[in-house]
Amino acid sequence: MGTVVPLKKSANSAYLQLKNLLSEKLQKVEGLIQQKLKSDVNLIEKMTNHHLSSGGKRLRALLTLESAKLTGFKGECRDINLAACVELIHSATLLHDDVIDESELRRGVKTTNSIWGNQSSILVGDYLLSRCFEMMVEDGDPEILKLLSSTSAKIAQGEVLQLQHKGEADLLEETYIDIISLKTAALFSAATKTGACLSGGNEKEKKALESYGKNLGLAFQIADDALDYYAKEKLFGKEVGKDFFEGKVTLPLITIFQKGNDEEKSFLAEIMKKKKRTEEDFSETLALVNKYKAIETTFKKAEYFVNVSFDSLAIFPESADKKILQNLTSFSLNRSF
Amino acid sequence: MGTVVPLKKSANSAYLQLKNLLSEKLQKVEGLIQQKLKSDVNLIEKMTNHHLSSGGKRLRALLTLESAKLTGFKGECRDINLAACVELIHSATLLHDDVIDESELRRGVKTTNSIWGNQSSILVGDYLLSRCFEMMVEDGDPEILKLLSSTSAKIAQGEVLQLQHKGEADLLEETYIDIISLKTAALFSAATKTGACLSGGNEKEKKALESYGKNLGLAFQIADDALDYYAKEKLFGKEVGKDFFEGKVTLPLITIFQKGNDEEKSFLAEIMKKKKRTEEDFSETLALVNKYKAIETTFKKAEYFVNVSFDSLAIFPESADKKILQNLTSFSLNRSF
Repeated sequence: MGTVVPLKKSANSAYLQLKNLLSEKLQKVEGLIQQKLKSDVNLIEKMTNHHLSSGGKRLRALLTLESAKLTGFKGECRDINLAACVELIHSATLLHDDVIDESELRRGVKTTNSIWGNQSSILVGDYLLSRCFEMMVEDGDPEILKLLSSTSAKIAQGEVLQLQHKGEADLLEETYIDIISLKTAALFSAATKTGACLSGGNEKEKKALESYGKNLGLAFQIADDALDYYAKEKLFGKEVGKDFFEGKVTLPLITIFQKGNDEEKSFLAEIMKKKKRTEEDFSETLALVNKYKAIETTFKKAEYFVNVSFDSLAIFPESADKKILQNLTSFSLNRSF
Repeated sequence: MGTVVPLKKSANSAYLQLKNLLSEKLQKVEGLIQQKLKSDVNLIEKMTNHHLSSGGKRLRALLTLESAKLTGFKGECRDINLAACVELIHSATLLHDDVIDESELRRGVKTTNSIWGNQSSILVGDYLLSRCFEMMVEDGDPEILKLLSSTSAKIAQGEVLQLQHKGEADLLEETYIDIISLKTAALFSAATKTGACLSGGNEKEKKALESYGKNLGLAFQIADDALDYYAKEKLFGKEVGKDFFEGKVTLPLITIFQKGNDEEKSFLAEIMKKKKRTEEDFSETLALVNKYKAIETTFKKAEYFVNVSFDSLAIFPESADKKILQNLTSFSLNRSF
């Protein structure tokens, strides 16, 4: 890789290109979400509005829409409805994640739990997930219903697995990949596969888009985890060192543990075991990250998944839509937001 | 009513009769739940096993099975599968409720959150709900899918509504009924209606069983809320005064607020607004409960729903199954566990 965290214009523009291309549909997705989340319960209205307007990328919804487009979907509504479902599964997860991580901010905006408390946020997360199941049921496609409901179970399993291994500096890379496969890649792959199912694509097409999404999701999560140790810039409105302070062991830390000497290994094991880590612990860890070029190594590994994701699209004939999805794979590594 | 909290043998025996009648099927429900909740994630296995073995009444599952039986269901599997789904929706709710209420014990057993912490309990609740959706999807009946997914959204809305009105001593009885309709009665009515849907019952039969379940659920919840102020005995392994100390305003409290003089009203408004209530606050409130015979009034109101529930079954010809469901309506008021 040329630079460590290269903010290539082309990569960001792949996302913006996609967003512009689908802006009309995306607006309908937003409208539908708003409409479907309406509730007689005042507090739910306020909280879901706040949570959903705090400006995510809507990447998962875009992936469903674009995968449907690539495979020739011609309808007007089902893609909107299912893109909204995919995005809602993500939103419900975020609400609970913020409670679990005791997050104060998400993308620079106060989290619902920090405004309305954990109790309501847990319940509104349940509400989002249930409403989203209602929407899937309205669509009624058994294959998609099965796919999305099992994805939701996978996400929860991934999050629990992550919690179970919290504070383990000697986490196996294999286990780390299991965790992010469940908690992140499963929904990416469901998003893209749903697109193919919508168009009645054949098994090969479904499999190809499933693989595209899965590997894109892995690359995306690994890059995200790397940036947590990339202290030079505060990207995405995300606090640097968040994972570290929460005791989440991710690939950069796994890398320095793999490469470190016995003393460094003991240091890492000890600080990650602690209930709380200090700023000094973080500085020392960053020094090891630099010493062992752990960001570079992490990005190098992410690149593998970027390539697999890119190559999954080989079965599709060349087209503008294919090009956009291909370009998006680098976005997973290079995004600046 | 004859006695305030009459522990009539006949009422409990209605439940035991039902449980014995369906013991074989109920065992299959338990087996299926265990099988479906299997996960590669060790912690999930442990937590779901603990949570599900802490011995609930499985009343909702029994209601689905018996409603199916009443309406002539002849199959072997679908009733088991859907009774398990109904029970799992309930279990998932309980997991999150215990986190929200910071409960230490449920039926005298340590709660999952008190053993494994809130974070895992939130996630395992999500896992239960998602798995349960997967099981419904396996069944595939669109009507039941729609019913159960909307029920899940209703429960969450009811819980949020309850939270929103926490600490309001002047809660309208109307709003209280809205809350318990959503958080409790919706699942009871879905449980019984699902039974009728399973047998392909006609609209009248579905509606009748839906009404039976809904009103049974209301009676059940009101009785539960009354017993929270019935300090003589610790029933169900439930702590007395739990709702009161959590600031949940229920029918006994609404009753004394309705009947109290200005001074008493101010007292109630003031103590319920506080962050924490003392044992002395509880004693004074219990004195008002006695003064205004609030338990009797509360049970009297519950009796209305018991009667509506009982009468909903009028359209069905006499049978042993109908008799059991009828007897069960008094169980909602008289249960000692």
